[in-house]
Amino acid sequence: MTTKAKRSRLDLRNGRIDLSHGAGGCATDQLVKGIFHRAFDNDWLRAGNDQSAFAVPAGCMVMTTDSYVVSPLFFPGGNIGSLAVHGTINDIAMAGACPLYLSAGFIIEEGFPLADLNRIADAMGAASRAAGVPIITGDTKVVERGKADGVFISTSGIGMIRAGLDLRSDAARPGDAVIISGSIGDHGVAVMSKRENLDFDTDIISDCAALHGLVAAMVEVAGSSIRLMRDPTRGGLAATLNEIANASNVGLRIDEETIPIKPEVAAACELLGLDPLNVANEGKLVVLVAPEFANALLAVMRAHPLGAQAALIGHAEDDDHCFVQMATSFGGSRIVDWLWGEQLPRIC
Amino acid sequence: MTTKAKRSRLDLRNGRIDLSHGAGGCATDQLVKGIFHRAFDNDWLRAGNDQSAFAVPAGCMVMTTDSYVVSPLFFPGGNIGSLAVHGTINDIAMAGACPLYLSAGFIIEEGFPLADLNRIADAMGAASRAAGVPIITGDTKVVERGKADGVFISTSGIGMIRAGLDLRSDAARPGDAVIISGSIGDHGVAVMSKRENLDFDTDIISDCAALHGLVAAMVEVAGSSIRLMRDPTRGGLAATLNEIANASNVGLRIDEETIPIKPEVAAACELLGLDPLNVANEGKLVVLVAPEFANALLAVMRAHPLGAQAALIGHAEDDDHCFVQMATSFGGSRIVDWLWGEQLPRIC
Repeated sequence: MTTKAKRSRLDLRNGRIDLSHGAGGCATDQLVKGIFHRAFDNDWLRAGNDQSAFAVPAGCMVMTTDSYVVSPLFFPGGNIGSLAVHGTINDIAMAGACPLYLSAGFIIEEGFPLADLNRIADAMGAASRAAGVPIITGDTKVVERGKADGVFISTSGIGMIRAGLDLRSDAARPGDAVIISGSIGDHGVAVMSKRENLDFDTDIISDCAALHGLVAAMVEVAGSSIRLMRDPTRGGLAATLNEIANASNVGLRIDEETIPIKPEVAAACELLGLDPLNVANEGKLVVLVAPEFANALLAVMRAHPLGAQAALIGHAEDDDHCFVQMATSFGGSRIVDWLWGEQLPRIC
Repeated sequence: MTTKAKRSRLDLRNGRIDLSHGAGGCATDQLVKGIFHRAFDNDWLRAGNDQSAFAVPAGCMVMTTDSYVVSPLFFPGGNIGSLAVHGTINDIAMAGACPLYLSAGFIIEEGFPLADLNRIADAMGAASRAAGVPIITGDTKVVERGKADGVFISTSGIGMIRAGLDLRSDAARPGDAVIISGSIGDHGVAVMSKRENLDFDTDIISDCAALHGLVAAMVEVAGSSIRLMRDPTRGGLAATLNEIANASNVGLRIDEETIPIKPEVAAACELLGLDPLNVANEGKLVVLVAPEFANALLAVMRAHPLGAQAALIGHAEDDDHCFVQMATSFGGSRIVDWLWGEQLPRIC
């Protein structure tokens, strides 16, 4: 029997992943071309190599990787595919770099609906095209039923740091202003509400978004007065602020009243028993900047759609304990702890 | 309760992964530093950013990614960690590129022994150091028990193509010599023997190895007379030859008697009902080269430890059907088919 005789069409409506799709033979080829090449749509993938090539200028490059295991796979405001593309672009952008190319690896459970895989791939393709960052190489593996959970996606990315920029995790200094680009907790609450089948009165949508455009505008204005940027994803704002404090050996003092949070997100957190400071964001960034540039930076952030709610939430200070302290709405003060473990498993 | 009060030591002997290790808090930090930073040992990781930066010269870069789901995780000659490092280096090397940096993403099942994770990380660190290609950025996720299978690893890598080299998957021409760097089937049979608990008389060991040193020697001698290279991993030599034939729109004619195979591997394939042409390799390459350079290339390959058994196994020819045909040991001829699906699930 020849290859051609064994070929059947990819049934994108009712078909399901089987082990043959991960075997590296014709079925893999058909799946990859029929779903991923179609959705990501570029000549690198069509060339069909195990790697893709491109010209780079001399300079300073960054590389990053993330694996995505979010549950459920589809949530208000996005799905695992858009999350993977945005998340990796954001990790590049946080270095002050311009993202260039992405890769994507898929680990798929036997029996997973091809229609769902197709929706996920479509979301990745759309996110990639909107961001102008193509997915140029990939890999597909299949594991037996019960050995994964639908689909896991690993994305990696590279980008070039803008000349003259040198953001370092240990660059924060006492006096620096701490700014957040918008409201906290949206992504985590959106995923949790879907997972727990909660029916909130208002629709809470993930903030999942690519931040490299916002970063470009910020760098344009504030340039090297920006000390560092971080996206407060897993672990939320609390984890990010503690990481910054520890890496830079400073304390951070923030003011709860200044932290933007949507009333419906605050209410959902109350209901779910979550501290919004620990809830994941997927389209927000925290930036530390020299104090004299804080207002100019805030202005440019607020002029961008993804920074319209940007707010100055505090400042860095001398503190050998590297504590993150928060003035609470009730007039007191508390230490914002770095959680040991899990508040929200599989949030990204 | 402050962070410090909640910290406990990482028990590398008897500890197990729990969901807190994937939550992005202190426990994640402790795991990542205690296992991955220690094993991979470089300043990029120690900087603790979500991305790593490095200088690049102007030129032509390649990027590649692979996800590894091999079962079992430990097999004769390697484990999922060494496999991931070698596999990604090889995908870069097959483009004629010099590998520069790797990333690694881990998806770990709750309950996975820290001792096993540590062994895997050690193998990755050793493979990375031996190859001179550091793992500079990574990510760790944890999923609930029963939602993965021990550990999955996704590695990505980048490298620079040597100036003047332009290998393309469609570059094979009629008359080109087809050379393989050594014996086939070792990896697949080693994994299968472990999986099936088979006790062969002789020890069959995976050929898992990084091929970029061999490739550098080959390029030095044969340069642009090399049309293309491929590593015959998942799907084996048969899939690789069919991919080459289809991409370049040529036929390939190979001679079974010239294909190196260890007697014990041939015997095991017989026992397991496997065609060695479909069995995965993880330290072999297939190269197509202009016929007048075949002997010189063979000589340089045989002078390298990873090419000592290199052999000329056939040539490309005009064929609109792009068939791969093999003269059999019995004096006949057969078409080497591109399997539709699975011969050996989860072999890499």
